[in-house]
Amino acid sequence: MIKSTKVKAAILIIGNEILSGRTKDTNTSSIALWLNSIGVKVNEVRVIPDIETTIVETVNLLRKVNDYVFTTGGIGPTHDDITAQSISKAFNLEYEMHNEAFKILEAYYKVGEFNDGRQKMVWMPKNANLILNPTSGAPGFNVENVFCLPGVPSILKSMLGGLKNKIVGGKPILSHTISLRTIESEIAKSLSDVQDNNKDLEIGSYPFFQAGKLGVSIVLRSEDQSKINKCSKELLDFINEKKIEIVDR
Amino acid sequence: MIKSTKVKAAILIIGNEILSGRTKDTNTSSIALWLNSIGVKVNEVRVIPDIETTIVETVNLLRKVNDYVFTTGGIGPTHDDITAQSISKAFNLEYEMHNEAFKILEAYYKVGEFNDGRQKMVWMPKNANLILNPTSGAPGFNVENVFCLPGVPSILKSMLGGLKNKIVGGKPILSHTISLRTIESEIAKSLSDVQDNNKDLEIGSYPFFQAGKLGVSIVLRSEDQSKINKCSKELLDFINEKKIEIVDR
Repeated sequence: MIKSTKVKAAILIIGNEILSGRTKDTNTSSIALWLNSIGVKVNEVRVIPDIETTIVETVNLLRKVNDYVFTTGGIGPTHDDITAQSISKAFNLEYEMHNEAFKILEAYYKVGEFNDGRQKMVWMPKNANLILNPTSGAPGFNVENVFCLPGVPSILKSMLGGLKNKIVGGKPILSHTISLRTIESEIAKSLSDVQDNNKDLEIGSYPFFQAGKLGVSIVLRSEDQSKINKCSKELLDFINEKKIEIVDR
Repeated sequence: MIKSTKVKAAILIIGNEILSGRTKDTNTSSIALWLNSIGVKVNEVRVIPDIETTIVETVNLLRKVNDYVFTTGGIGPTHDDITAQSISKAFNLEYEMHNEAFKILEAYYKVGEFNDGRQKMVWMPKNANLILNPTSGAPGFNVENVFCLPGVPSILKSMLGGLKNKIVGGKPILSHTISLRTIESEIAKSLSDVQDNNKDLEIGSYPFFQAGKLGVSIVLRSEDQSKINKCSKELLDFINEKKIEIVDR
């Protein structure tokens, strides 16, 4: 099914609040940095609204062309939280009360506090595997290669560590950044030559403003440290030749 | 082609730096807030890598099912900037030097500074319409309903105002937020009842942490102010009844 030897993932952000512009998504960055560290590359991110048919279709598409899919958002207790029921439909599974999740939340809350709203959070696709939540109790879950996480960034981050044994990655994706006091057009030709000499390594060029001055960060990414080292040397050759200042960022 | 009477847009973020997690996307929020103000709703966001075939396929898919597509990133002078050539392929247009863009940058730079790297930025799809850039000279462009903007957030923001006459929106999408000192599970049932009474209005519920305390923001979105007002009143009824504190955010 998966042709590439690289392990690849898609992130699916479920949430009207991102599409409206009200909230800026930071979960993509948290998930992607963590995935890189365990050798999984994020291939695609999609942000979609809280609409069941859209969630079902998108999940079914992404899970077939990626090794892993991570969804964020829509697993809370309110009416607009429809991820668990949508994932059930996507996999043709019953949407039902999850006994283990029920026990976890029953123990987590004080007597009388495990109300109807909270009980909604233990409804999941039948036989879903739980993803434990050390911050606020209510677990996420996965079905096959689809992992469903909450939308609140601090809670999401606290749950990633517990996923490690469930994800089989490749070699960690290494990166090295060299930041320069220059502008892109001054180094475009040299950078292009270095890329031509290092075809199987990803070289990105990103302009920045810092303390009122312009600069460019050059980011090298590869699974192979020796390739990054070789490429860095070639970059330093032209950086020295052009007398460009290297800056700390 | 477009069935809905609403005017809808997709945002396509082109950039390995977002997929790697190195950079957090803020352009979606800038574009979406601005679009809402002129009556255009963002339906979908995708983040894809700097790969020509992926850009071509995704643009061709999105432009057919949306009134407008906004791309960000990949229009600078370096080797990893391949948006303009990809858009040319998507529309089967020549990728060529744009005379008007050339004149703009020739006038913008000092004599001798309009070098090869910078001249790459005036290569565009044949007969593209320019989007002026008041910050750093190099224009964006549009072909039919696809608008190509740069990835640097401050430059992108400065270019949105100049687009206003090119975008025909519907009624502005209005929103009203009520932030409460409560937790979602306490209000889930009441909120769901209010949503049932106000089916054609979008009610979102978003937990937050502020100054060490939990809260929930309820966001109402509609093109019709009277619907927002009616719904707000119903919310205030249960908020008062439950003696929930309203907080400033």
